[in-house]
Amino acid sequence: MPLSPSVTDAAYLEQVRAHILALPESGIVEVMNYGRDRPGMIPLWAGEGDVPTPAFICEAAATALHAGETFYTWQRGLPELRAAIARYMSRVYGVAEDPERYFVTGSGMQSILIAFAMALAAGDEVLIPSPSWPNAAAAAQKTGAVPVAVPFRYGADGFRLDMERFEAAVTPRTRAIFMNTPANPTGFVATRAELEGVLALARRHGLWIIADEIYGRFYYADAPRAPSFHDIMTPDDHIVFVQTFSKNWAMTGWRIGWIEADPRLGQVVENLIQYSTSGVAAFMQRGAIAALEQGEPFVAEQIARARAGRDIVADALLATGKVDLVKPDGAFYLFFGINGHRDVARLGLRLVDEANVGIAPGTAFGPGGEGFMRLCFARGAVQLEEAARRLSAWIRAHGGAAAPALETAFDRS
Amino acid sequence: MPLSPSVTDAAYLEQVRAHILALPESGIVEVMNYGRDRPGMIPLWAGEGDVPTPAFICEAAATALHAGETFYTWQRGLPELRAAIARYMSRVYGVAEDPERYFVTGSGMQSILIAFAMALAAGDEVLIPSPSWPNAAAAAQKTGAVPVAVPFRYGADGFRLDMERFEAAVTPRTRAIFMNTPANPTGFVATRAELEGVLALARRHGLWIIADEIYGRFYYADAPRAPSFHDIMTPDDHIVFVQTFSKNWAMTGWRIGWIEADPRLGQVVENLIQYSTSGVAAFMQRGAIAALEQGEPFVAEQIARARAGRDIVADALLATGKVDLVKPDGAFYLFFGINGHRDVARLGLRLVDEANVGIAPGTAFGPGGEGFMRLCFARGAVQLEEAARRLSAWIRAHGGAAAPALETAFDRS
Repeated sequence: MPLSPSVTDAAYLEQVRAHILALPESGIVEVMNYGRDRPGMIPLWAGEGDVPTPAFICEAAATALHAGETFYTWQRGLPELRAAIARYMSRVYGVAEDPERYFVTGSGMQSILIAFAMALAAGDEVLIPSPSWPNAAAAAQKTGAVPVAVPFRYGADGFRLDMERFEAAVTPRTRAIFMNTPANPTGFVATRAELEGVLALARRHGLWIIADEIYGRFYYADAPRAPSFHDIMTPDDHIVFVQTFSKNWAMTGWRIGWIEADPRLGQVVENLIQYSTSGVAAFMQRGAIAALEQGEPFVAEQIARARAGRDIVADALLATGKVDLVKPDGAFYLFFGINGHRDVARLGLRLVDEANVGIAPGTAFGPGGEGFMRLCFARGAVQLEEAARRLSAWIRAHGGAAAPALETAFDRS
Repeated sequence: MPLSPSVTDAAYLEQVRAHILALPESGIVEVMNYGRDRPGMIPLWAGEGDVPTPAFICEAAATALHAGETFYTWQRGLPELRAAIARYMSRVYGVAEDPERYFVTGSGMQSILIAFAMALAAGDEVLIPSPSWPNAAAAAQKTGAVPVAVPFRYGADGFRLDMERFEAAVTPRTRAIFMNTPANPTGFVATRAELEGVLALARRHGLWIIADEIYGRFYYADAPRAPSFHDIMTPDDHIVFVQTFSKNWAMTGWRIGWIEADPRLGQVVENLIQYSTSGVAAFMQRGAIAALEQGEPFVAEQIARARAGRDIVADALLATGKVDLVKPDGAFYLFFGINGHRDVARLGLRLVDEANVGIAPGTAFGPGGEGFMRLCFARGAVQLEEAARRLSAWIRAHGGAAAPALETAFDRS
């Protein structure tokens, strides 16, 4: 490297393919970078809790590591882990126990990419309810495909699917629907009837459904889990489930997930794993087995903690009378507006400065997120009570007068 | 899942995009599955050694795991690891020490995909000398691009680049050259003059070079490492180096590597990591830091072991007088023919049955691999001596008469 660059950054970057150069940066990073190092900051911007991975999971991984499980391994995952996932899915979702349905991946993110690779070629379109976790749309774009945002309807019952908008969004290039339920960031939880509507649409047009039900057990209504495509699908449907160990078992940093797909796709999925990262470390998979087999008390505790966290923050914010907030039935986010503060990118920075609480602007989550903020409540009560206290005080001081009816103010049509 | 599938496998698979359905299965798997469980089998088919990851690396990872380094982390990699890579590359390759050039990835395989994503859109072409490690071509295909095999010339000096074939292979759709040196499976090592020829071609046509120099230190000639693009490049060249911890530090199963690229590509690479697997487990990165900082004696021992292994097997095979084999100067494979046995897929199975040694058919490595077998010699002397004894005995018994001159028999024009 004897010389300095002689061309400008822009000239150097011209050789990068346009759809890759256009990939969005994370919209959360600005506020994170702004607030990261503030003393006493309570960070509620990311989609992860404050608890490290339980010791029994770490032990299982460390033991395997020291035992020399450091060689190449099965591309579809350790047979023992695939069997453990099959037992887990049978227990929680009633899926017939078949290890051949499950493929271990290097993160839920990778699961999405593999599903998109099967479904989408360059120029194909995938429908994504919006606002949504931005990585799904970006993954489609990375694949060379076109993510098509289908806005939720927003009203007194929160965010709801609008099947007419879905139907209207289908074109000859549409190949897939990405359905996240319970949803990040909105807290939307599809009813069984809504899932049936989406499935009918997919069947009618020959579309894949990429089902992201990773928050399925973070459900606060009338059942131990949210409604699932598992409840209504038949074997000939083209539904691929993308899953992760991140949320249930506090393993966000591990980067391990799985795909659930029809066994007829087995060789295709195996090839895609081979040509993505060529499998997942065997010693990490030992940790994942421990999570599935010994993790139920931990998961139950995490869910109870999130439910309590939701109530702590949501009740405090609602009591101000100056927020647009529908308490969500699922996932672990509040997605809400503060009266009189539509410029949420600026609002995020102000809340860092003036309330020392970090929350993410809704604009990071695509069309329909304008005017909203996302707050993660998967944390301990003491910290959330303090965050709620700070935020409520700020909102009482700075929030605008009551907004017009929600349907008028925030409908995204 | 109440019902059985009602459509055939083929009908179900019709919904998978064609270029994905066409991805090749590994060509090594047939012989591996055939021989995997034979008692006493010596497996030399895979590209990995027989030594597990050293304890000091495992310790560093396990310590970080138990210390709670289980949360989301920097998308570009831990700053400490990026700095450690920069020091390592400065020490070994004389690269100016700049951590901003390095990006931690979830395997060398992922590094290649990220590099290809920047360079290749659907329909674009990448030139790949052939035979080659098949995952590079498959990664291009997965991207929607077209891998173009450029055959090596084969003769008494082994496999050599043919710059005329390279020049002739360039079309208006050509965007990149994938250059693996020292090479798997051929043992080809580019000379400085050959690298200069490739770089000149790339500059002339505005092409990226994806440089896979992962075997750079497994070099048995006149210097501590093989010639590198680092020796000749200037900052304005579009050269992306794809790297892995797998080979030098016996970490094949970990799935961790890095990309070296101009810092102007930093945000693009970060986005591609974000939308691939969203970073690498921090606790694994602690192991990688230990590898770089304390691993030199181990690496030196591995290289000496591979050099000895090469001589053990190559000398024994050459002594039969019935092989086409040029002793390679780099990487850790012999790529050779046995006289009279051109059907190498069948030969691989016979050697399992009759010699109890597992080696991979050259046809798994694309055009030009016909008639060759790949043998990995990154193993201990005792096992390699036994493998060499078995193979030599088989070849003496079953090898054909001396072949015509190599140039005639195996030239790939």
